[in-house]
Amino acid sequence: MGEFDLIERFFKRPVTRAALGVGDDCALLQPAPGMQLAICSDMLVEGRHFLSTVDPIKLGHKALAVNLSDLAACGARPLAFTLALAMPRADPAWLAPFSRGLLALADAHECELIGGDTTQGPLNICITAFGEVPPGQAFLRSGARAGDDIYVSGTLGDARLALEVFRGKASISAALFEDCRARMEQPTARIALGLALRGIASAAIDVSDGLLGDLGHILKASGVGAEIDTATTTTLLAASRHANWPQANLGGLELLELVLAGGDDYELVFTAPVAARDAVLAASGEASTPVTRIGTVQPEAGLRLLDARGRALTHRFASFDHFA
Amino acid sequence: MGEFDLIERFFKRPVTRAALGVGDDCALLQPAPGMQLAICSDMLVEGRHFLSTVDPIKLGHKALAVNLSDLAACGARPLAFTLALAMPRADPAWLAPFSRGLLALADAHECELIGGDTTQGPLNICITAFGEVPPGQAFLRSGARAGDDIYVSGTLGDARLALEVFRGKASISAALFEDCRARMEQPTARIALGLALRGIASAAIDVSDGLLGDLGHILKASGVGAEIDTATTTTLLAASRHANWPQANLGGLELLELVLAGGDDYELVFTAPVAARDAVLAASGEASTPVTRIGTVQPEAGLRLLDARGRALTHRFASFDHFA
Repeated sequence: MGEFDLIERFFKRPVTRAALGVGDDCALLQPAPGMQLAICSDMLVEGRHFLSTVDPIKLGHKALAVNLSDLAACGARPLAFTLALAMPRADPAWLAPFSRGLLALADAHECELIGGDTTQGPLNICITAFGEVPPGQAFLRSGARAGDDIYVSGTLGDARLALEVFRGKASISAALFEDCRARMEQPTARIALGLALRGIASAAIDVSDGLLGDLGHILKASGVGAEIDTATTTTLLAASRHANWPQANLGGLELLELVLAGGDDYELVFTAPVAARDAVLAASGEASTPVTRIGTVQPEAGLRLLDARGRALTHRFASFDHFA
Repeated sequence: MGEFDLIERFFKRPVTRAALGVGDDCALLQPAPGMQLAICSDMLVEGRHFLSTVDPIKLGHKALAVNLSDLAACGARPLAFTLALAMPRADPAWLAPFSRGLLALADAHECELIGGDTTQGPLNICITAFGEVPPGQAFLRSGARAGDDIYVSGTLGDARLALEVFRGKASISAALFEDCRARMEQPTARIALGLALRGIASAAIDVSDGLLGDLGHILKASGVGAEIDTATTTTLLAASRHANWPQANLGGLELLELVLAGGDDYELVFTAPVAARDAVLAASGEASTPVTRIGTVQPEAGLRLLDARGRALTHRFASFDHFA
């Protein structure tokens, strides 16, 4: 199959939001009057971001989901995306499920595939996604203020636990593994929560490299520090899913590390003023997405972990760095 | 060097056109009121699109140039771009010249780097570029009409000739090689010509895979055919640069093949009504970019090559297909 045939067969569909879709030199997008365009780009490499054995349907889902997660962290509504794809060969048996998983998630968010590129090379998936947000309403990393509450959506640590099972390091029940594996392979982008938090959250980021590291980006950009209540964090963000973790063999991993520095979670960590607590709860309900208050923004730089009695914990958890 | 340090050091610069640049979950772009956003994406893979020995400055230039060339083929004015980069390691000795070449071309076109991604992996450069164009003025592949003239900008075949020298197949003079090598490694995106042709050209595409193949996309999308005057084509588009080609050892390659199916040219092939000949010449002058009229759009499908006496030539030149 040639390059143009495969684009035609697997990736070309009529567009309704874009003025021009796949098949010309450029796609054409006409943003709604007055709206800003939020743009993000994520590149997934085999062996680094996904295992070579992953189901192509799930990979198609994940490649778009990690980009939608960035849009969610800005409070943007997804509009469209481009896909650039390097593959060792044009294999319909891989392309058919990959495109199916990709486009199913795209359809669920009314996010159109409008263009891209295909070429031969080591498997590499690069998606650039576009969303819209009213001017001044995008959440920036620099918006956190001392005294703000810190929240996290959903649960943390699942994807990392599944990875450690794949690595042969941890050993958990089949039911927990299936649950964690789905979280690793088919993460949920918190689009609805991002939209519901417009005008409420003061700063946000999505948790891709680990909570501590990603929250650290907010703290650095905002010139503040934070205290995190680790008892609440582990109890509410992990232990509810990992109720049987004491029975699991985590291979020397601590649950605290999974939750605070696991990575690949694609939950939102965000800050909001104390006065907005009711509004945050309402947004959580509106988006049908649980959120947990895990700490407080502090005027002094640095990220301090507190135990259940408010005593400082020392931690040695590094978040994920692609070149560390 | 970590991922965030290298972004900070080599790729983060203040933005003036974008509302928000590198360093948050998303970049924010506010298109001018009423304008459409033209979006294209090109992925460059080592060994496929460039040689591992290429100077990183030139590679930085080329990675952006091939995207600007797509914007030119739509008549769009460049605004901004994202860069996703997979590299085996974070090597400042490579990143410094790469970013210098990339940003120099970006500055020349006032096209801002606003975001992207970096990760470890086999070298892969994926750029998504954004330009603006007034609604209805983008050149589409589907716009060619029977009777229209067919034009090409600049010269063709140089990049392919340089590639064949690198492959050890052709042998040419040092001066010609330097000239062709520069065309291969640092192509010129015909942005000024694209802008000057707004309202004049009926269809356009940039020549990346070879003239015949790329023109073929216009013909197919427009439901028409074409006749190409190969004598004019080779004389004006190649022989002027390759005046010494009879002395060169082209290793069995024909000059006609270099010109018609060489690839990697990044010239514009476009169509325009006969009544617009003066306007095309004026646009060429305004953009300081030579254009050559090489044929005519025909109502019957198919692409026919004619010799100097108007007799049909048979050809066997395939254009480049990444999976053929």
